[in-house]
Amino acid sequence: MSGRLTVIGLGPGDPRFLTPEAAEELGRAEFLFGYGPYLDRVALRPDQTRLASDNREEGARARAALEKAVAGAQVAMVSGGDPGVFAMAAAVCEQVESGPEAWRRLEIRIVPGVTAMLAVAAAAGAPLGHDFCAISLSDNLKPWEIVEKRLDAAASAGFVIALYNPISRARPWQLGAAFERLRAHLPAETPVIFGRAVGRDDESIVIRPLAEADPTLADMATLVMIGSPETRIIERGELPPLVYSPRFFGAKP
Amino acid sequence: MSGRLTVIGLGPGDPRFLTPEAAEELGRAEFLFGYGPYLDRVALRPDQTRLASDNREEGARARAALEKAVAGAQVAMVSGGDPGVFAMAAAVCEQVESGPEAWRRLEIRIVPGVTAMLAVAAAAGAPLGHDFCAISLSDNLKPWEIVEKRLDAAASAGFVIALYNPISRARPWQLGAAFERLRAHLPAETPVIFGRAVGRDDESIVIRPLAEADPTLADMATLVMIGSPETRIIERGELPPLVYSPRFFGAKP
Repeated sequence: MSGRLTVIGLGPGDPRFLTPEAAEELGRAEFLFGYGPYLDRVALRPDQTRLASDNREEGARARAALEKAVAGAQVAMVSGGDPGVFAMAAAVCEQVESGPEAWRRLEIRIVPGVTAMLAVAAAAGAPLGHDFCAISLSDNLKPWEIVEKRLDAAASAGFVIALYNPISRARPWQLGAAFERLRAHLPAETPVIFGRAVGRDDESIVIRPLAEADPTLADMATLVMIGSPETRIIERGELPPLVYSPRFFGAKP
Repeated sequence: MSGRLTVIGLGPGDPRFLTPEAAEELGRAEFLFGYGPYLDRVALRPDQTRLASDNREEGARARAALEKAVAGAQVAMVSGGDPGVFAMAAAVCEQVESGPEAWRRLEIRIVPGVTAMLAVAAAAGAPLGHDFCAISLSDNLKPWEIVEKRLDAAASAGFVIALYNPISRARPWQLGAAFERLRAHLPAETPVIFGRAVGRDDESIVIRPLAEADPTLADMATLVMIGSPETRIIERGELPPLVYSPRFFGAKP
């Protein structure tokens, strides 16, 4: 059998989000690469080999997986959420492009998953019901000025904004700076959703108006979503509110 | 047992994308509402009632489902892809907000799914590996000028753009106008992906440079994705190319 590399999205941290395709591909793998906490979610058989690496070693991890697959193995690379959204699928492509010719001849398959913003949106209502964008707030891979330009463009054009990688120990001020920047474009009462650990036992959804959005409400496991001027909140008494963006723009047609 | 409404994402048109949570919720339902072709994907038991409606009747469908659930039934509303992305979750919220008080007291749950852009991206490589946005090209629910403004903002700020609802019999010219507009911002060779029926037997992925992007390559079942100036194509001989957007911006850090 020829070697093969499959990049698999596990979805948010609960098996109820794992697609049958992802489960099947996990079962086919002889070697499973990934960030340790993601691999922890996979129940491995004794004949499967786990190869965990640190969060910041995507390039080296992708190269190791490609080498193993080119040598003839069935290799899986696991990713939280969807592997195509700020995750391992692009890291693998980067290595394929700059690597040896044999890596281009390899069978590579990407298995999509439920990405964090979809799970957070579902837990909060339907904030992504209208046009939206996703921005990684990490300035490890792009200059902060580019992040600012995109925040300005998205907010002023009326996109709902999902922020991935909002904050970390090494990047403590960026989320506060992003809120400050967005306040120049958006009404003070624009809903901001802090969605943490969705699908896990410690899931939490916190909603604040933009004027009171506090970066300390987020950590590395949080997806932050900022509404557009059209985004609304339906209060429901003791039930959690529904935050949603109407499908129509302005007056209902 | 109290009534309950669950809005369920089936994912793209193949059971391999259906999450365990969605499958479980489908099994709990007594009444299933939805657009006919989506309901066709669900294997109903004899004790389950199918209530299909036309594509353009989202408001009436949502009201009927809410009424049924408030009366005490276990109700499912099915959606293709993810229900929160240009789909039924927002339509339900719209009705809850404008409807009777009892609808706000109802237990409502949204079950996320793999949305079309994630499945198309996975089939093409990793075009959503960097910042991206999703725009519905339908001008039924918003003025065309708003679509133009968002295309301008997204392209000039470097977002990859996923276009939902790119074309229909009633909206034949919008996709061509969108390509024309994007050509003012983006290089002629920017990759455009036409992803059709992903996950089905007739799946097709067609890639063209923006200069040659032809709207007739799309139909109602197509998701169109336009790269950013950073998006790249890896040619792989007889294998399909990989289209991807590097995680980093500009020179590799």
